[in-house]
Amino acid sequence: MKLNILGCYAATPRTLTNPTSQVLEIKNHLFLIDCGEGTQVQLRKYKIKFSRINHIFISHLHGDHFFGLPGLLSTFRLLGRDKEMHIYGPKGIKEAITLLLKLGDSWTNYPIRFHELTAKEPEIIYEDEKVTVETIPLDHRIYTNGFLFSEKLGERKLNIEAVAKYKIDKCYFQNIKNGKDITLDNGTIVPNIKLTFDPPKAKCYAYCSDTGYYPEIIGQIKMIDALYHESTFLETEAHLSAKTKHATAKEAATIAKKAEVGILILGHYSTRYKSIALFKEEAQEIFQKVVLADDGMQIDI
Amino acid sequence: MKLNILGCYAATPRTLTNPTSQVLEIKNHLFLIDCGEGTQVQLRKYKIKFSRINHIFISHLHGDHFFGLPGLLSTFRLLGRDKEMHIYGPKGIKEAITLLLKLGDSWTNYPIRFHELTAKEPEIIYEDEKVTVETIPLDHRIYTNGFLFSEKLGERKLNIEAVAKYKIDKCYFQNIKNGKDITLDNGTIVPNIKLTFDPPKAKCYAYCSDTGYYPEIIGQIKMIDALYHESTFLETEAHLSAKTKHATAKEAATIAKKAEVGILILGHYSTRYKSIALFKEEAQEIFQKVVLADDGMQIDI
Repeated sequence: MKLNILGCYAATPRTLTNPTSQVLEIKNHLFLIDCGEGTQVQLRKYKIKFSRINHIFISHLHGDHFFGLPGLLSTFRLLGRDKEMHIYGPKGIKEAITLLLKLGDSWTNYPIRFHELTAKEPEIIYEDEKVTVETIPLDHRIYTNGFLFSEKLGERKLNIEAVAKYKIDKCYFQNIKNGKDITLDNGTIVPNIKLTFDPPKAKCYAYCSDTGYYPEIIGQIKMIDALYHESTFLETEAHLSAKTKHATAKEAATIAKKAEVGILILGHYSTRYKSIALFKEEAQEIFQKVVLADDGMQIDI
Repeated sequence: MKLNILGCYAATPRTLTNPTSQVLEIKNHLFLIDCGEGTQVQLRKYKIKFSRINHIFISHLHGDHFFGLPGLLSTFRLLGRDKEMHIYGPKGIKEAITLLLKLGDSWTNYPIRFHELTAKEPEIIYEDEKVTVETIPLDHRIYTNGFLFSEKLGERKLNIEAVAKYKIDKCYFQNIKNGKDITLDNGTIVPNIKLTFDPPKAKCYAYCSDTGYYPEIIGQIKMIDALYHESTFLETEAHLSAKTKHATAKEAATIAKKAEVGILILGHYSTRYKSIALFKEEAQEIFQKVVLADDGMQIDI
């Protein structure tokens, strides 16, 4: 799993900082998460293939998380896309996009399938053989979801030496990888555990932005590999943070600690601070494994 | 009059090229003309004061001319603006902006006054003591207006030596500048022409984008100082140009020649061409005084 940070600053696009957008590479998918103004330029800058994006997840309908979407969808049309595009986001997103395309008489030549979200409890919104995506209801000024991206446990790994030793025919390999025991010609049953290794660990990544300090999410993100949690402010601005339903670096770290996550990735920084290093300092008083997101960064999970 | 080109490329924002937006400095106003995605970043880059923009003119509702507007209006709010903002654009622009602000529960703390345009004939949409702005109906795939920005002829200039010679009291100066003759104490009438010089020439700038070749505009832009005319294509792509209701460099130059304008400014280039110099070459076969717009350029008119 690889996370590409296209933008991780709060509020407005600036000359050197971009509003929120990420691309998660997971099991051969490129999932676009949020789409602030300028996201399509960032996609070009970091040479991410437009044609490989088929699923876009929008956390909430504040401009810094979705004002790049109408332009991106228009560009897909200019690039000659014909594949279906799935957009997951709060109710209202379909009306907004449809109106903008209608006003420009710029209907796309590819189908857009909107999956509008209204639930206040977590729900699975995407699932295939290898991946699930689940909403993480957050606590922000307007209806907002984070997203939990989970790999499914893959097939067991064949122990080549073992199957050779027992002279097992190839036609049984798929059954073995699926966890089946094998009965040899002499009637001996070889348990699956002797023929396979455990599959690679399935990984989980949670994206939580924007949100105030909201311990209700801890159960859902317990022990995951990586948590992106917004930290718009430092504790010195805790009053602003509470008022605007954003989180401080300390609050993000507290969530990470209680959820016992692998790493905490901080982002959605207010541009009022001179250095984002301050966010790491504050968070590490609570939780050690902190990564500071920055525009253009790629993080291996 | 000064024209700041923020973006002058067609279709989509890219790493090094920006969609359409300009700022016209005219008689102490900063008029923003069109607002493609990323315009607010360009405004920051070229250090144009956000607070001095009170009038925004949108030619048409294709994304590359207005998808930067919702974000810009949101940023004005974050900057604490309280002054009224006037937005001139095709009918539908109010519904679009209002819906986007409503979905984000991000109402502005300053009033926005929408002036929605529907007329098919030129109309004056802004006027004060020093400036008028008139629509130039264009021929594009959707309802589109160019804009004609005209300075009004100012006061006549006082001839300091002449008023000293006739010993005319200061209290008459405003009357003289307004064109009045003066009667001296001895009954002699001094005609205004002896007391004043002509005022500085009033300048006119026309913005015409997007449009196909449309000679109907020539009467309205006759003899103006500067014409910005789109040239999305070269003649080698004339078939595409006709189909999409854009103009070639040659067509733009033909309009400029027939209208006998001072200078022709080309822009709205398709990014398919290796060098924008090709547009100048093609145009100059018809009309000599060609300026190639480019992002970040400032043009004195």
